[in-house]
Amino acid sequence: MRSYEIAVVPGDGIGTEVMTEALRVLDRVSSEFGFGLKFRHFDWSCETYRKTGRMMPEDGIDRLRDHDSILLGAVGFPGVPDHISLWGLLIPIRREFDQYVSLRPVRLLPGLTPPLRDGASADVDFWVVRENTEGEYSQVGGRQGTGTDQEMVVQVATFTRRATDRILRYAFDFSRGLGRPNLTLATKSNGIYHSMPYWDERFAEISAEYPDVATSQEHIDILCAKFVLQPERFDVVVGSNLFGDILSDLGPGVTGTIGVAPSANINPERVHPSMFEPVHGSAPDIAGQGIANPIGQIWSAAMLLDHLGEEEAGAHVMRAIETVLGSAGAPLTPDLGGRAATGELGSAIVNAI
Amino acid sequence: MRSYEIAVVPGDGIGTEVMTEALRVLDRVSSEFGFGLKFRHFDWSCETYRKTGRMMPEDGIDRLRDHDSILLGAVGFPGVPDHISLWGLLIPIRREFDQYVSLRPVRLLPGLTPPLRDGASADVDFWVVRENTEGEYSQVGGRQGTGTDQEMVVQVATFTRRATDRILRYAFDFSRGLGRPNLTLATKSNGIYHSMPYWDERFAEISAEYPDVATSQEHIDILCAKFVLQPERFDVVVGSNLFGDILSDLGPGVTGTIGVAPSANINPERVHPSMFEPVHGSAPDIAGQGIANPIGQIWSAAMLLDHLGEEEAGAHVMRAIETVLGSAGAPLTPDLGGRAATGELGSAIVNAI
Ligand SMILES: CC(C)[C@H](C(=O)O)[C@@H](O)C(=O)O
Ligand SMILES: CC(C)[C@H](C(=O)O)[C@@H](O)C(=O)O
Repeated sequence: MRSYEIAVVPGDGIGTEVMTEALRVLDRVSSEFGFGLKFRHFDWSCETYRKTGRMMPEDGIDRLRDHDSILLGAVGFPGVPDHISLWGLLIPIRREFDQYVSLRPVRLLPGLTPPLRDGASADVDFWVVRENTEGEYSQVGGRQGTGTDQEMVVQVATFTRRATDRILRYAFDFSRGLGRPNLTLATKSNGIYHSMPYWDERFAEISAEYPDVATSQEHIDILCAKFVLQPERFDVVVGSNLFGDILSDLGPGVTGTIGVAPSANINPERVHPSMFEPVHGSAPDIAGQGIANPIGQIWSAAMLLDHLGEEEAGAHVMRAIETVLGSAGAPLTPDLGGRAATGELGSAIVNAI
Repeated sequence: MRSYEIAVVPGDGIGTEVMTEALRVLDRVSSEFGFGLKFRHFDWSCETYRKTGRMMPEDGIDRLRDHDSILLGAVGFPGVPDHISLWGLLIPIRREFDQYVSLRPVRLLPGLTPPLRDGASADVDFWVVRENTEGEYSQVGGRQGTGTDQEMVVQVATFTRRATDRILRYAFDFSRGLGRPNLTLATKSNGIYHSMPYWDERFAEISAEYPDVATSQEHIDILCAKFVLQPERFDVVVGSNLFGDILSDLGPGVTGTIGVAPSANINPERVHPSMFEPVHGSAPDIAGQGIANPIGQIWSAAMLLDHLGEEEAGAHVMRAIETVLGSAGAPLTPDLGGRAATGELGSAIVNAI
């Protein structure tokens, strides 16, 4: 029997709650489709940090290295500053394993009540392709004059041709593969003087290699407005680390909840494991209540299956999600307007498999 | 008769079209309220750049200096790279005149069809307070290895205590003055390692001086989603130059159009002139067609009147806008779902004064 080793990092807050459901789904679907999944659990979290002063052990990255994939919940919790927790766990995994593509589908699932009127949300169906290793997410910089009136913080963002070109090429190839070749660049070259004109320039140059892909570019401010006003316009949107982050929360917002949105952190060359995690965070405000929506985590698990080559199983998970959401009396969590617990929605999906 | 000197910079694209209407409104309301407005026109634009190699003359800033206020249309047009046009005109005015507050109301006007269902947009009524002089909008940085595989762009953002504190204090004072003291900080301290934790830190420290102002903070990604999912939650949102920019386009998007949104670039100490401009840009895609919505420019003119101390006249302009939009058969421009021309909507507002 083919079998895969999956590193499981539930993390903080609702991360642990939604992970339970995703693992149940994976167990069920793997036995249904006749392959094995071996889960190795890593309880790295803000609690670990409070006990040990580290989010993960010094050899944490090495311990993850030999897995076929990583399934992550959410990282960050009050009591540990966010830049400490995230730069101690999530961000190093993305970078050390060169998961340079963050791929995030934005799609209206059946049965959900989207916030836009006139069914405008119904046509929301696009992908955000986000640069995932450099850019605005940067530890380069520092502070001078600490505590004085002259205090000043410098924040440096770096954009290499290597990382910019490879994410743009991925986005062009992906658009082409979709059969809906319409690619939008998120930019802000009117305000951010060096980096964003550079993105415009690379986009223009690489687009010449893809004459069959229609392109447009929008400044991030108006692009955000258009996500609300004309979301049906978009097929694939590519952007920097920060812009991709913003657009991949806003997009699911336009479908009614970010609780369902998944993401894949992909190392396309498969030299290193890829990582799958929901777009939502650890949600301290609802953690421990058992009301978190598990679909973002379950959909992420479906993307993991696709990545492993188990596309049929992945598609089956998606059908189960859609069947449950589309059925009358589905046990919806509060973010979807229902009153079901995390486990009830999870069980319904497990049973639909 | 009291009289004011206003510098008028229509700029590019639809900037010139909407400016015509705003000036008609200002002419009418000033004669109605018995004060004088003397307009001095500056035809600085991308056309100027193509003719002279500069967006404005070398002594441009000095020529504006002695005016009571500046009314600007929009800057930027295809053929001149956006970073050239904006850093040659709009951004230097903001900085040289230390217009460190960008104040942007987001409010649903009567008669508009907002994109959100269930009337959720009806309660949208908040302000974005944006840092307007430094931060991510920066010419610091550059490129190395140009044209090689090792090419790399460095983009530096700087955040001084002086600029950070003064915008935060402005936002706290403004929230307090509103009588709805609920202030939200836009941050991204989980990803942007130096600058955003600094904003969190200054926000926490200054909030101690304002115990009567309720505060919260949200990372920019989830904040954008909440602008769509729970827009009624917000009263005042304060953020950096980039985050303020994004939120002040997205907010009006949630009210149905960015064509109505105004902005004030304020030098609160009144050492220098302040500048008023719509949030929308020069919109090359519809420029020259006479279909641009003039309300963003007219509302900006109303904010200019407020700033001059002519609050009654400013309020009267707002009432005229609301009367026209709220009346059956109002001549709406295409972005509002109508088919009226810029001048027809402008005339209706002039007549309502
Ligand atoms: C034109 C551009 C530079 C400007 C900005 O980003 O500040 C505009 O988007 C705005 O919001 O006033
Ligand atoms: C938690 C945070 C650092 C992370 C990010 O900004 O990348 C999250 O928002 C995401 O989108 O995966």
